[in-house]
Amino acid sequence: MRTEDRLIGLIARRFPADPETPLGIGDDAALLAVPAGARLAASCDALIEGTHFAPGADPADLGFKALAVNLSDLAAMGARPRWALLALQLPAAEEAWLAAFLEGFAALAARHRVTLAGGNLARGPLAVTVTVLGLVAAEAALRRDGARPGQRLWVTGALGAAAAALAARRAGEVPEPAWAERLDRPEPRVEAGLALAGRAQAAIDLSDGLLPDLERLCRASVVGARIVAPALPLAPGLAQRWPRQALALALAGGEDYELLFAADPDLDPRPLLPPGLAVTAIGEILATPGIRLEDGEGRTLPLPPPAFEHFPEAG
Amino acid sequence: MRTEDRLIGLIARRFPADPETPLGIGDDAALLAVPAGARLAASCDALIEGTHFAPGADPADLGFKALAVNLSDLAAMGARPRWALLALQLPAAEEAWLAAFLEGFAALAARHRVTLAGGNLARGPLAVTVTVLGLVAAEAALRRDGARPGQRLWVTGALGAAAAALAARRAGEVPEPAWAERLDRPEPRVEAGLALAGRAQAAIDLSDGLLPDLERLCRASVVGARIVAPALPLAPGLAQRWPRQALALALAGGEDYELLFAADPDLDPRPLLPPGLAVTAIGEILATPGIRLEDGEGRTLPLPPPAFEHFPEAG
Repeated sequence: MRTEDRLIGLIARRFPADPETPLGIGDDAALLAVPAGARLAASCDALIEGTHFAPGADPADLGFKALAVNLSDLAAMGARPRWALLALQLPAAEEAWLAAFLEGFAALAARHRVTLAGGNLARGPLAVTVTVLGLVAAEAALRRDGARPGQRLWVTGALGAAAAALAARRAGEVPEPAWAERLDRPEPRVEAGLALAGRAQAAIDLSDGLLPDLERLCRASVVGARIVAPALPLAPGLAQRWPRQALALALAGGEDYELLFAADPDLDPRPLLPPGLAVTAIGEILATPGIRLEDGEGRTLPLPPPAFEHFPEAG
Repeated sequence: MRTEDRLIGLIARRFPADPETPLGIGDDAALLAVPAGARLAASCDALIEGTHFAPGADPADLGFKALAVNLSDLAAMGARPRWALLALQLPAAEEAWLAAFLEGFAALAARHRVTLAGGNLARGPLAVTVTVLGLVAAEAALRRDGARPGQRLWVTGALGAAAAALAARRAGEVPEPAWAERLDRPEPRVEAGLALAGRAQAAIDLSDGLLPDLERLCRASVVGARIVAPALPLAPGLAQRWPRQALALALAGGEDYELLFAADPDLDPRPLLPPGLAVTAIGEILATPGIRLEDGEGRTLPLPPPAFEHFPEAG
């Protein structure tokens, strides 16, 4: 048997067949049964060595995060995760590395009842591309283009922890364990997305940072927004440890994987969301394009520059 | 606007919105409508620089081939291609390269009415991962596990041209243009797969070579097979140009992207397939495991070694 087939066998054994999936790993394609009336939400996202993580990163964390960043996209649509396809580029056939990676991936997949339905395995520079498929009722999906002036802007959880952990590591320091956890094992806000589906008017997940992702939501909805800086939910300890950078990390740090959403002012999302998950009103949607950052008294503050650009040379 | 968003805009403009796809490129996930009664066939496959193609490969060919190898998987299921997600790893934001790549991708997508519904764009060593989604009636899907002793084995098209072109290039020669075309722009056998759906009993597409792919089909079906060497449809000119290697190229060369299928002996697939596409009976399914290669008089021939292994070091 070819090594590739042996490794695929290792993956298939780690993810037992799902009786509700007509055909899973091991054929030319998986065969999936989509319930009538549901829309299929499809997204894919990659983690690439040197771009998204440093050489030597923990494989179990990588497996967890590769799925988490994808589930975060489904959460932002209000979709229930159902299947994943895993495309792995590996420099060598290291079974111990692969087993650890699958452990992390499987831990999160089990929690959200995601079936690994297929994928691809090939030699190449280390990279992981995951495609996720989820289900959402046609009218309930949370799109980016539903924001309207007067709606309130909310964000789940707290901001800046992942970016602070990354900055600490880059400076050769050991980050706060709670911040490192947010960077290495972000918790996709799947339940929050499901609770907001059909109730919020627009949503996006925060991957690149509050400001760039809010800009995307506003561009899609052809609106602007006003953010109140003192209202932002900073990660616990962030303002104490890094007082001067805390606001910039929360606004532009990226990798928070929280949900940013716009909702009519009469919606109170707090009782809807899972217990223990904070949700904070941080501003509102405006008719005029552009993002305005304000202090607590309506004065405009300068926007921090973006922290991460994939292709800065052509920016 | 961030460069990443600008490049995504370039992709979105190249692939106009599909009125039958509720939500395409540009949100956290695409929203797709799967007709009731159809199974969703899902597959993903990658082309990686240094593994699947050499540095400097033509970007339009790459775009075509990245989709073609995926459509070939759907063809092997008997599924009708419907959507694709494109995950691109690019070392730099070269718009001319990207435009040429999209040209090749779009040419094949248009031919098979595939909607590009989403994807991902990130900096990294050049690699393309495509996920394809297709539709097939639940009972008509061509799986790998349906082969039974006594069924006839058939293969579409001709074998060995792509491997011969690759061997020629590696030897510093210019390959026959017809062979290079098969290597650079393989034609996925989508119509053949659709015609065979519900009629053939098992199928697989030939990506790694007739022998390894037949082994996979046999392993899934828990059967063996007998192949008659003189019956194999060699690519035109192959036996003349490379008389000693022709059989090995056809058996183990890989990248043919033809369909290999098993069908009851009373099925004649020839009138079913698109005009101009050859289909050849090359052997039969046996109850005993293993692949037997025979000459025209029932004598066993030695099997050539596999031509390509992703992870040979651990083989």
